[in-house]
Amino acid sequence: MSPSRTASTFQPPVMEARRWLEGVDFTGRPLINVSQAAPVDPPPLEMRQAMARMIVEQDDTHLYGPVLGLPALRAQVAQDWSQAYGGQIGAENVAITSGCNQAFTAAIAALCAEGDEVIVPVPYYFNHRMWLDMAGLRCVPLPARAGLIPDPQDAATRITPRTRAIVLVTPNNPGGVEYPAETVRAFFELARARGLALIIDETYRDFHSRDGAPHDLFRDPDWDQTLIQLYSFSKAYRLTGHRVGAMVASDTRLAEAEKFLDTVTICPNQLGQHAALWGMRNLGDWLAGERRAILDRRAAIEALFPKLAAQGWVLEGCGAYFAYVRHPFDMPSDELARDLVRQAHVLTLPGTMFMPEGQGKRHLRLAFANVDRAGLTVLFDRLAAYSPAP
Amino acid sequence: MSPSRTASTFQPPVMEARRWLEGVDFTGRPLINVSQAAPVDPPPLEMRQAMARMIVEQDDTHLYGPVLGLPALRAQVAQDWSQAYGGQIGAENVAITSGCNQAFTAAIAALCAEGDEVIVPVPYYFNHRMWLDMAGLRCVPLPARAGLIPDPQDAATRITPRTRAIVLVTPNNPGGVEYPAETVRAFFELARARGLALIIDETYRDFHSRDGAPHDLFRDPDWDQTLIQLYSFSKAYRLTGHRVGAMVASDTRLAEAEKFLDTVTICPNQLGQHAALWGMRNLGDWLAGERRAILDRRAAIEALFPKLAAQGWVLEGCGAYFAYVRHPFDMPSDELARDLVRQAHVLTLPGTMFMPEGQGKRHLRLAFANVDRAGLTVLFDRLAAYSPAP
Repeated sequence: MSPSRTASTFQPPVMEARRWLEGVDFTGRPLINVSQAAPVDPPPLEMRQAMARMIVEQDDTHLYGPVLGLPALRAQVAQDWSQAYGGQIGAENVAITSGCNQAFTAAIAALCAEGDEVIVPVPYYFNHRMWLDMAGLRCVPLPARAGLIPDPQDAATRITPRTRAIVLVTPNNPGGVEYPAETVRAFFELARARGLALIIDETYRDFHSRDGAPHDLFRDPDWDQTLIQLYSFSKAYRLTGHRVGAMVASDTRLAEAEKFLDTVTICPNQLGQHAALWGMRNLGDWLAGERRAILDRRAAIEALFPKLAAQGWVLEGCGAYFAYVRHPFDMPSDELARDLVRQAHVLTLPGTMFMPEGQGKRHLRLAFANVDRAGLTVLFDRLAAYSPAP
Repeated sequence: MSPSRTASTFQPPVMEARRWLEGVDFTGRPLINVSQAAPVDPPPLEMRQAMARMIVEQDDTHLYGPVLGLPALRAQVAQDWSQAYGGQIGAENVAITSGCNQAFTAAIAALCAEGDEVIVPVPYYFNHRMWLDMAGLRCVPLPARAGLIPDPQDAATRITPRTRAIVLVTPNNPGGVEYPAETVRAFFELARARGLALIIDETYRDFHSRDGAPHDLFRDPDWDQTLIQLYSFSKAYRLTGHRVGAMVASDTRLAEAEKFLDTVTICPNQLGQHAALWGMRNLGDWLAGERRAILDRRAAIEALFPKLAAQGWVLEGCGAYFAYVRHPFDMPSDELARDLVRQAHVLTLPGTMFMPEGQGKRHLRLAFANVDRAGLTVLFDRLAAYSPAP
């Protein structure tokens, strides 16, 4: 009897990491949790009040809506994206999904069948790996080069007749790095030349350090033959609990994704979509402030890091919500992460969760978005003071 | 190049049916829409007000929660189910999902791999078929016997070494019929004896015509070795737009399902879960009234049907939200359904959407839950007056 789809992959890392907290007494020295990439505060009061009014007054917030999402939200995304990226994006190119993870699963279902291959730079986002496993696909790892940037020429050597797509995440999870526009363009040209899809997950786009469009792909009149862009409203507007993401692609591919989305959830939840729309229309300045705060924390990480570097730590990537660090200890990162909970009261995710089996033992991901400058100082003091029990 | 997962199945029927409305002028004789099984009214005002307060005051309604759902809701389901079904169901046996469709997809992912087989009575719920297609499984149709009830002995002859599960929907979608408790028990014993899972979708449970538990499976101390029960909060509390369902199963199977749920949506949306919990705690009497209203509509269907029977129509099943009828015309039901939109201003779904290719040409599904007695009279008048253009 063959193992089931789910038996082919591992337990959810974030839930596993939560279990490491059990039985540890944090009295006197509270836990610093840098494990999950999520806001810990609710949306601004003004937005919550608007949502409360919708719940009472707008019947449609309680009813089924179209599988591909609220037409007004699709149109708003199309309009804003066309302006931000300088391209032609219509409402028919936008699908709203129940979070960005679902956008990825739907895109893969629309592209691939059993035994197909997808090229994924490592370290990767673990849920991408989990879905490729459960979909019966081969995840082809593409080792990153210096600065955690993958190289299109390395990818080219990994393309086979079964390859269907290349996946990029920029700004990167877990690496934090922002892929240069020319790297993104080179991957696009490679994918186009070889008849593959290029999936770009831009969940952390709103916290990019560069002003303006992070790449020029949407300026290409035929972008939709190659590009599938994924987005999340969760981080920008603090809507993680409402599950709202998006997929931007050709209408033909969205018609395929629609089958998957209908079958798995029927439609995205309606209030979350209305909230995302309200956010896009009303929270532009607020979001700019959020971005400045995140960029300030990134600067703090870079300023504080020499203290750790002196002890052999290396900052390999830093940006958006994440720092990806190399640790100096003769201990695999999954053991180290557990020990850091007990000894330092710090919860990180180990590199082993972002790499194929046997790799990632020297790395940790720090999801720093919820930790202010004072908290980052404490975090770095704790890491600097830590050494494994002999 | 093999077709993708989504290319292996058909377009979502409800969305396809909506497209039949384009270009038809309903002025003077408004459309009667009996295509989708969904409330068209919002939840009661008291509940909407409670939800509005949560949105403003409860930060956790906006944040990620556990993959398997809100602990308080899982505990409430366990408690209510233990009482209603007379069994031992713990919170660890309950997962909350982003709607009942997602519960089905997660259950199948936890049980099956490429090429496995699942036995499904026909007519079936189309999204079940779509998921089996997209998961690379073989949907083994089990023709229903008289009264649209499937027979466990017929199922036994269809079991092969690749069979992993049998799926029942009771009250049935699209058939409307309630499976007798002894039929459900016999399927359970068959599944247990052959080492299969029995998946029972009880989305329409709250509108069952019999008082008390619709089956006795949970009384079995080892129920969780065989049974996976699916449920939806959408119909009971009018929460379709919030996407909240449930899966009741062994904790081992839920740990497998957790991988799928985490990867596809991370967690169910939080407000919907809080609303479902509020409903379970406060809307018992209200729900009892909803049930009486649905049962009254069912009685109206049965009382009105002779008018159609005189013209050759047959009522094959009636219950919960649905009537499943055989039409008298020499025309395939998918063509008939389109013609009924144009000629009678009635939107139904054809039997072809609930059957393997080439079958279902003589049937229509009427989802009558939103049509009151007066509306049902008009509906039947229109159907009685209809005849295909020569």
